[in-house]
Amino acid sequence: MRRAVTLAARGTGSTSPNPVVGCVILDAAGEPAGEGYHQRAGGPHAEIHALRAAGERARGGTALVTLEPCDHTGRTGPCTGALIDAGIARVVYAVADPHDEAAGGAATLAAAGIEVERGLLAAEAEEVNLPWLTSVRRRRPFVRWKYAATLDGRTAAADGTSRWISSPASRADVHRLRAEADAVIVGSGTARADDPQLAVRHPDLLDTLGAGLRQPLRVVVDSNASAVRPGARVLDGSAPTLVAVAEDADAAHLEGLVPVVRLPRAPGGRGLSIPMLLRTLYEREVRSVLLEGGATLAGAFVAARSVDQVVGYLAPALLGAGPAVLADAGIGTITDALRLDVTGVDRLGPDLRITAVPGRPAPAAAPAPATPAVPASEEN
Amino acid sequence: MRRAVTLAARGTGSTSPNPVVGCVILDAAGEPAGEGYHQRAGGPHAEIHALRAAGERARGGTALVTLEPCDHTGRTGPCTGALIDAGIARVVYAVADPHDEAAGGAATLAAAGIEVERGLLAAEAEEVNLPWLTSVRRRRPFVRWKYAATLDGRTAAADGTSRWISSPASRADVHRLRAEADAVIVGSGTARADDPQLAVRHPDLLDTLGAGLRQPLRVVVDSNASAVRPGARVLDGSAPTLVAVAEDADAAHLEGLVPVVRLPRAPGGRGLSIPMLLRTLYEREVRSVLLEGGATLAGAFVAARSVDQVVGYLAPALLGAGPAVLADAGIGTITDALRLDVTGVDRLGPDLRITAVPGRPAPAAAPAPATPAVPASEEN
Ligand SMILES: NC(=O)c1ccc[n+]([C@@H]2O[C@H](COP(=O)([O-])OP(=O)(O)OC[C@H]3O[C@@H](n4cnc5c(N)ncnc54)[C@H](OP(=O)(O)O)[C@@H]3O)[C@@H](O)[C@H]2O)c1
Ligand SMILES: NC(=O)c1ccc[n+]([C@@H]2O[C@H](COP(=O)([O-])OP(=O)(O)OC[C@H]3O[C@@H](n4cnc5c(N)ncnc54)[C@H](OP(=O)(O)O)[C@@H]3O)[C@@H](O)[C@H]2O)c1
Repeated sequence: MRRAVTLAARGTGSTSPNPVVGCVILDAAGEPAGEGYHQRAGGPHAEIHALRAAGERARGGTALVTLEPCDHTGRTGPCTGALIDAGIARVVYAVADPHDEAAGGAATLAAAGIEVERGLLAAEAEEVNLPWLTSVRRRRPFVRWKYAATLDGRTAAADGTSRWISSPASRADVHRLRAEADAVIVGSGTARADDPQLAVRHPDLLDTLGAGLRQPLRVVVDSNASAVRPGARVLDGSAPTLVAVAEDADAAHLEGLVPVVRLPRAPGGRGLSIPMLLRTLYEREVRSVLLEGGATLAGAFVAARSVDQVVGYLAPALLGAGPAVLADAGIGTITDALRLDVTGVDRLGPDLRITAVPGRPAPAAAPAPATPAVPASEEN
Repeated sequence: MRRAVTLAARGTGSTSPNPVVGCVILDAAGEPAGEGYHQRAGGPHAEIHALRAAGERARGGTALVTLEPCDHTGRTGPCTGALIDAGIARVVYAVADPHDEAAGGAATLAAAGIEVERGLLAAEAEEVNLPWLTSVRRRRPFVRWKYAATLDGRTAAADGTSRWISSPASRADVHRLRAEADAVIVGSGTARADDPQLAVRHPDLLDTLGAGLRQPLRVVVDSNASAVRPGARVLDGSAPTLVAVAEDADAAHLEGLVPVVRLPRAPGGRGLSIPMLLRTLYEREVRSVLLEGGATLAGAFVAARSVDQVVGYLAPALLGAGPAVLADAGIGTITDALRLDVTGVDRLGPDLRITAVPGRPAPAAAPAPATPAVPASEEN
């Protein structure tokens, strides 16, 4: 199964709106007979690749799959049928299909007399499919918020300069995250300040991924249609682009230049409704987005509890002044902080990359302090 | 030598104003014959402990010492003499004495016909003695700045609440840092806001260190003698305290209550002169200080380039508002950022502890951008 998870990971970034899936077939004697993974939406599923590789050796054998085999005829036939036809005797899968229980193939396989087992290496298999699983469960895209900041939480110096805050290794890693995402989102503030291109351009990635590279959809959240002007880099044609504007915005200057989607404004708040934005993207088959900022829009996503993963690039530097990495998220007091669990800490050149997911519930009301009461600064 | 470094570390926090030193004696056959470390100022040096343990077996043997043996008669006799008298044939030391070259004992040992070698495990031996070496080299105390913040660099929420930002494991670790320091410093803002006690009180540490525990000197930087009032917790007698005030401050209310030192105000700046504060502490045999904040005073230390090590406790939480961990440090543009090298990343319960030291020089002028020019947000 560990091999199957590794195989699944190879599909990362190119299977959307489908999950990544890996499969290993063992023959009746328990020897590896074939393997495969889902490479791209519309192409054969992992099980089909693996069964083809195994050929006749699949008969009486075991299929190890990272995700419960599908039971419906979509762009390709159901995998359950293929496994049954190949004479597989046992199917072991790591994670259940998160769609409606009935949709899963486990029951069909069992009904056909196949021994079915579930849960092997479930955590690893969840992890590799986190974006897809999250999006199916929440019915909105998985949102990964990426930021780059100094140790003291600044994204730029007091005069606005930010060049080289993070290292070349971190910048290359951001291009990798872009390549994995179906869409990249920025706010109008970032569009106006930086005129970013937002495409995957890192030479190493272009080499590795080559023709397999899919440029993510570039999304600018520009309520008043005032930040994206003709000539903006996001309109350069190197990747598809979508500009989200308010229902009442005057977007005549964008007509014919770029697809525009109209969304309701956030009720009582600033900008557009984040849930509506995400729903719209989900309907366009966007299963994962990379939220690239800035601080204002990220604050709105945090306020809407619509951040599923945080990837922070921390540059070991101190500034003492300059814009903060996260602006108002509607959190006024410490017990309302968005608590996270750190899932990874890595060194990227001189920088640290911290990966975290919302998790730990806010701690219960603080216990009565021991005597003598300990003042706040001593708690920290 | 690795063993000697481990032994040296046992003295951490109790040898000041002396260094920590570890020593292992091998007999003529190369077998371990004795070991020791410097336990407290005024007590025997590491070499003496080790020679005593080795007894006659030291004759013809090797002494492995983390620091060049001393050659002067201070509170104890010179170690060079003791090594010579014991008939040691070879001395291997890791780090040279940073005092005036002539002060070192290597030359004396060599003149007595002893084979002398230097540099073995120098990096590890430097590390264990970093505070002392830094203070001797800079003629001011080693300054370790400690902070606790959320991932987005806030030390409290918008309403000022900060309870439980960091975990019990992090808070216990701060008490360990206090126990290692000769002095703990806070600004008048922190003294006023939190009325902290600043003593080492963690039960685990009290158990471990027992009688060996030395409470650090508590220092409040209170230019106008307006934050520390009679009844303040820092005046509770659980540890010595020093209040630093301006030369022109009215500190009559502190007379007889607590030692007060008068310092010049920072030229053209806010508060007291940081270099003068550090010089005063150095003259009082303070070799290491733990700067506990707040953000304003820490900014002044960074501006004075007087931070030698940063220990940040990062709580995996997001706030989006609230005071920043570091205030104005006189840095206006990105090339003036204080660049650090990360020397350690550890998990403490749910938190991360990041240790870093000033190091990496600011990168040279940015190279000419590749075409097409990459906007700032894409660098990050
Ligand atoms: N270090 C990094 O990781 C990083 C990454 C990206 C950007 N940046 C920097 O961040 C700066 C820009 O950040 P910013 O905070 O000013 O702008 P921003 O977050 O990019 O955009 C904020 C704008 O988005 C629009 N918006 C639409 N819907 C919204 C909603 N629901 N909530 C909030 N805003 C919504 C609002 O303007 P309208 O309603 O008028 O459209 C709002 O003013 C730039 O200087 C850029 O270089 C840094
Ligand atoms: N999370 C943490 O790690 C942590 C740690 C400590 C404190 N805190 C929090 O931080 C807050 C207090 O921070 P703060 O920034 O307001 O105050 P602060 O840094 O503790 O003290 C600042 C004051 O120190 C005095 N000072 C003396 N010499 C100075 C110099 N050279 N430069 C600058 N200031 C000098 C100044 O007042 P005078 O000149 O009038 O004396 C200045 O206003 C509290 O709420 C506390 O709870 C958090």
